[in-house]
Amino acid sequence: MMICMYKEPILFLPGPVNPPYNVNKMLSLPMIGHRTEEFHEIFADIINMLRKIFMTSKSEIFLLTSSGTGAVESAIINCFSSREKVLIPIYGEFSRRASSIMKKHGIKAIELNIPIGRGPETELIKREIRKKRDIKGIFIVYNDTSPGVFVRNLPEIADVARNENILIVIDAVSILGGSKLFMDKWGIDVVVAATQKCLATPPGISMIAVSKDAWDIMEKKNVKSLYFDLKEYKKFLLKNETPFTPAINILFSLRESLRNILDIGLNNWIRMHKLRARILYTFFEMASFKPFVKKKFRSDTVLSFSTPKELSPIKFKEELRNRFSIYIALGMGELKSKIIRIGNMGYIPFNNLASLILASSIIFKRYGIKIDIDEILDKDMVLK
Amino acid sequence: MMICMYKEPILFLPGPVNPPYNVNKMLSLPMIGHRTEEFHEIFADIINMLRKIFMTSKSEIFLLTSSGTGAVESAIINCFSSREKVLIPIYGEFSRRASSIMKKHGIKAIELNIPIGRGPETELIKREIRKKRDIKGIFIVYNDTSPGVFVRNLPEIADVARNENILIVIDAVSILGGSKLFMDKWGIDVVVAATQKCLATPPGISMIAVSKDAWDIMEKKNVKSLYFDLKEYKKFLLKNETPFTPAINILFSLRESLRNILDIGLNNWIRMHKLRARILYTFFEMASFKPFVKKKFRSDTVLSFSTPKELSPIKFKEELRNRFSIYIALGMGELKSKIIRIGNMGYIPFNNLASLILASSIIFKRYGIKIDIDEILDKDMVLK
Repeated sequence: MMICMYKEPILFLPGPVNPPYNVNKMLSLPMIGHRTEEFHEIFADIINMLRKIFMTSKSEIFLLTSSGTGAVESAIINCFSSREKVLIPIYGEFSRRASSIMKKHGIKAIELNIPIGRGPETELIKREIRKKRDIKGIFIVYNDTSPGVFVRNLPEIADVARNENILIVIDAVSILGGSKLFMDKWGIDVVVAATQKCLATPPGISMIAVSKDAWDIMEKKNVKSLYFDLKEYKKFLLKNETPFTPAINILFSLRESLRNILDIGLNNWIRMHKLRARILYTFFEMASFKPFVKKKFRSDTVLSFSTPKELSPIKFKEELRNRFSIYIALGMGELKSKIIRIGNMGYIPFNNLASLILASSIIFKRYGIKIDIDEILDKDMVLK
Repeated sequence: MMICMYKEPILFLPGPVNPPYNVNKMLSLPMIGHRTEEFHEIFADIINMLRKIFMTSKSEIFLLTSSGTGAVESAIINCFSSREKVLIPIYGEFSRRASSIMKKHGIKAIELNIPIGRGPETELIKREIRKKRDIKGIFIVYNDTSPGVFVRNLPEIADVARNENILIVIDAVSILGGSKLFMDKWGIDVVVAATQKCLATPPGISMIAVSKDAWDIMEKKNVKSLYFDLKEYKKFLLKNETPFTPAINILFSLRESLRNILDIGLNNWIRMHKLRARILYTFFEMASFKPFVKKKFRSDTVLSFSTPKELSPIKFKEELRNRFSIYIALGMGELKSKIIRIGNMGYIPFNNLASLILASSIIFKRYGIKIDIDEILDKDMVLK
């Protein structure tokens, strides 16, 4: 007998993530107009909650209907004009992408190539800024998912930027909500994020938080885009609206998800990411998987590993997908066949984590990779 | 006794619209990755169906995560470079917006101001193109929702453009699926549309269809944006993917909605718009509402009226909203207090149409506006 059923995908991707049931359900609320009081209320709610997530009381928060890359482009062109110099350390696809956005707009991207699997050391940043004159800002991808590099020393880099009196713009797309980011306390000028990562919401909406200092600069810029000109968004912010029709359903969901996170508590939500990361690192290292990134810069939200020789990255990925409907990612670009990447973002319930661990163990056994399942049972996998 | 219930909004807005039940339900399908085979299948399905809606066999269709304005900006900057001249007849907020996008990018927008409540006459366009030398293209908002102007003579204007060998770029955001648009047959180069209007889907995804001729031009352009550079989208099109994370849930819905439309038949779907428009024009004219737009340019998807003196536009809008949870719009900008606008887009079931008619009749009676309800009952309101 053939049982034909829809297999629900279990996502351990570097985004998108499986949204929790209550978040997903909100998507299909009845449609409302985006110039109505009902919308204003939802919008205001979201902005107020996001302030708590970005840890800022003074910044403006803008909601865009775009992927994270759209918001990164918007942040860049609102902060910097063509021919201005911006320091951009490169340690993965997303820092490379930010640099190519700058070049598209004639901004002088001063690239600082970091050896693969490492992040930007604070001292290096400091030296570079002092070396070149007239640097207007520095762009940091807080967590570059392509190798899985987490810039743990961001507060130090922010200090450098503040001392040198230059703007610091952060791509926090794959990490906001998954690790600490004290925007006000650390003195970050601009932070970009998106719904579909640690905020456990479907994709479609991105956000840009802008400090007062950064806004003073932006206000005077002549931005060569209408859709990405934050001054347009600012005009409508006072009315709790967006200038253009937003992805309304994603906002329904985002509100619910932010409520979840604040109910649990932002610190607890972040702690859940850390705990799961620890469990996953331990588990895969037991199976002779090697973390690809140096410990100092290792990400908790995207874990990258090279695999034991018995099991190639692509084989492991395919076995998980074909047999268990579990989705992980390979490396990007030249790293494609060299590493696996496991997303650990948003709300991952015990059953999903258990499935990944048990399914992996089954595959390991078939490929002759030794793993002590008894030892795993000693790990505490209660995540809350 | 107080019954507290969520009042489901009935939308007669110029977008967004109420998506049909089966379309709305699809929003909360389990999340999938956008680099997976499951996604490729959905993406390919959508593109194939959209070809039938755009009436084109030869064009490429790009899906963007943005509002319609985002896609309009993308179309403009992929077609035209700074300092190039583009003719843009202005007859409402959306043609004005396209012009301001051009100016932002240094494109020379040659504005052609049309008297309010009218559209661009073909002869005028022809004269203007011949007068100015070196015009690279013409931008037409096929249906400008702000006054409710429908450019019924688009095929003639397209003929002019073809004869003069210049690009013709169409904003069809508020009309694709609601009226005929034979992209290939009429020789239209670029058509922009969005999900949340006549395609009866929630907002979040916009589309750009590009003819082969237009692509030959685009391919050589140096576009000053990454997010809106269609060459990036083209690279991923072959894999049935988008370059950046799309609003995946909206795509789930869009597929379902396009299936609905093609099941019903595109011609029938368009005919439903026309029939409803005829019923609504007749009904409101019976109540002494005056269509704001000259008959020749009157839209079937956004109907605009000035109201009888007993009942101001804002009063009528508020009564419908507060008492019946029915949403219509006022005019935009200077027309705000002067007209009402009634959206007639997508799937509007009999119960919604009946509610608008009966609720309006009740309001008319209270304000002393004469209407013969018996006569209305003679109208055939079976829409399929």
